[in-house]
Amino acid sequence: MAVPVRASMKWFFGSIQRCSVTKSLCTQVKTTENKVRCGGRVFSGIQPTGVPHLGNYLGALEQWAELQREYRSVLFSIVDLHAITVPQDPAHLRDNILDLTASLLACGIDPAHAVLFRQSQVSEHAELSWILGCLTSMPRLRHLPQWKMKSKGKNEGSVGLFTYPVLQAADILLYRSTHVPVGEDQLQHLELAQDVARIFNKQYGDLFPIPKALLSSTRRVKSLRDPSSKMSKSDPHRLATVSLTDSPDDIVLKFRRAVTDFTSEAVASARGLQTAQYKLLVAEAVIHRTAPLRAELGRLRADRGHLERVLTRGAQRARELAAPLLQEVHKRVGFC
Amino acid sequence: MAVPVRASMKWFFGSIQRCSVTKSLCTQVKTTENKVRCGGRVFSGIQPTGVPHLGNYLGALEQWAELQREYRSVLFSIVDLHAITVPQDPAHLRDNILDLTASLLACGIDPAHAVLFRQSQVSEHAELSWILGCLTSMPRLRHLPQWKMKSKGKNEGSVGLFTYPVLQAADILLYRSTHVPVGEDQLQHLELAQDVARIFNKQYGDLFPIPKALLSSTRRVKSLRDPSSKMSKSDPHRLATVSLTDSPDDIVLKFRRAVTDFTSEAVASARGLQTAQYKLLVAEAVIHRTAPLRAELGRLRADRGHLERVLTRGAQRARELAAPLLQEVHKRVGFC
Repeated sequence: MAVPVRASMKWFFGSIQRCSVTKSLCTQVKTTENKVRCGGRVFSGIQPTGVPHLGNYLGALEQWAELQREYRSVLFSIVDLHAITVPQDPAHLRDNILDLTASLLACGIDPAHAVLFRQSQVSEHAELSWILGCLTSMPRLRHLPQWKMKSKGKNEGSVGLFTYPVLQAADILLYRSTHVPVGEDQLQHLELAQDVARIFNKQYGDLFPIPKALLSSTRRVKSLRDPSSKMSKSDPHRLATVSLTDSPDDIVLKFRRAVTDFTSEAVASARGLQTAQYKLLVAEAVIHRTAPLRAELGRLRADRGHLERVLTRGAQRARELAAPLLQEVHKRVGFC
Repeated sequence: MAVPVRASMKWFFGSIQRCSVTKSLCTQVKTTENKVRCGGRVFSGIQPTGVPHLGNYLGALEQWAELQREYRSVLFSIVDLHAITVPQDPAHLRDNILDLTASLLACGIDPAHAVLFRQSQVSEHAELSWILGCLTSMPRLRHLPQWKMKSKGKNEGSVGLFTYPVLQAADILLYRSTHVPVGEDQLQHLELAQDVARIFNKQYGDLFPIPKALLSSTRRVKSLRDPSSKMSKSDPHRLATVSLTDSPDDIVLKFRRAVTDFTSEAVASARGLQTAQYKLLVAEAVIHRTAPLRAELGRLRADRGHLERVLTRGAQRARELAAPLLQEVHKRVGFC
């Protein structure tokens, strides 16, 4: 079955061309120090599913690197507490956390500016989550579409899977974050965080800014085998997803096998090309774009001690922000 | 309407007579150091609702003081994280925590032996609760009778109210507790803690002992106005509940007004007494029994600095036990 893919391919190509391929992807913040930065604080969490794929990179991580230059304070959390809301193999999870750390650094996250940390190393996330859970009604959570989808409409699954939007709210509010990069599928969870912030502020006095969504302008990158669904690591089709560690040969193969449609759309530079030629052009652009990233990723993954040190230092910095906030929450709630 | 109360009164009298009224209620652990203590560890939590009433004392606190002499390791937690599962006035909650601390000390809890601490000061409770929530299924919680009762069968209420049995499981397991004093109404929550311990042990290797119930042999103390319900601080009848701070005059009044039945049961020493005489006898026994406790409570409540120091030191000791356990849990789950 042929399903429309050319539009997606076209966007792929355009998106990859937008950034000069000669520009290093491991951007240094110091090169942009003269740019005006916004006030406010950005928080974003990412699940430790290992090395990201091209969709993660173009859909989120690339934007994250930009945010470091645009905001004075930026926190990126590897949300391992969220990861265990579904079953995980411990050794696999441990590797995935470090692989993701290496990938984030390779994608341009700079620990000198952004606070990059593992969620489970900052106890205040779970603590605030408990307190906010006491301000959240059961029906409010039950009606979230993600829960309906993940529990397959049966209202079953683990308690963690049900309550994780409250932990997300805690993740954001713990740092009094003002901006949160989100995909459209997470908008309702951000609304929950906004509601919980309002409820707390009303009950205990103003403390939390109401966090705003930073909706990614990037369209979702689609599966190369089924453009009706987004690119995903859990896609059973081996050829559907381009990992940031894929070799140039892998990338060429995956694009060559990409599902093709027969609409006549194409970017100017591809006008007149045969489908096979067009696919190769896209594959080469992807290879070129991801090459420095791939090299840096390989180097970083080999130095696990460094990755651990980055995360430990990040957790210290996160705690320096989180601890006084939680102390204030404790005071207002009446714990001390 | 007269409802049977004599049986309850008789028990009251017997229970109060069991302990010599001349014996200090502020028992010192050092006087019993020669007694053989059991291995194992006892954990119990108590909600900070302020100064306990006679029912709390005879139904639980008296047993707690005994447990200090019977077990090598005993932890008592003022569970303020549980308290906020229903709305609380912060100033009131703050006072209640200190009043309860004073009461526990007055009832014979000895910080030299038992670890007495405020739950919110030990972050590991909320952290472990999150992890255990990821091992607990939604239907398992939904079917707990306490939730059905508290949500009035509507499956509504706060997320905290719904998930608090998971926090209770964390409270217990965090210290690898072996014994938990519980009332019958909490037995199913202890069963949840046992189940969660088994699930964790099976999935990640043996770590948690399966905690056993220490069912209080003491029957529940009933309301003085309605012997079909237990004595409770939230009873709307002012005369239904005897507080440990009640003056002798208050106690006499409350017993004099206690609902009376006309069954002929009575303890030997009350044989042949008129109802009014019998009630006075009980009131006097209660006054006598609680007098040293009331005096000690008054002294302790006046020294809030001391109470804070006791709780802070208790939290330090609790953390010394909790931190390595949580670290081990993190390792097994794959967080580090």
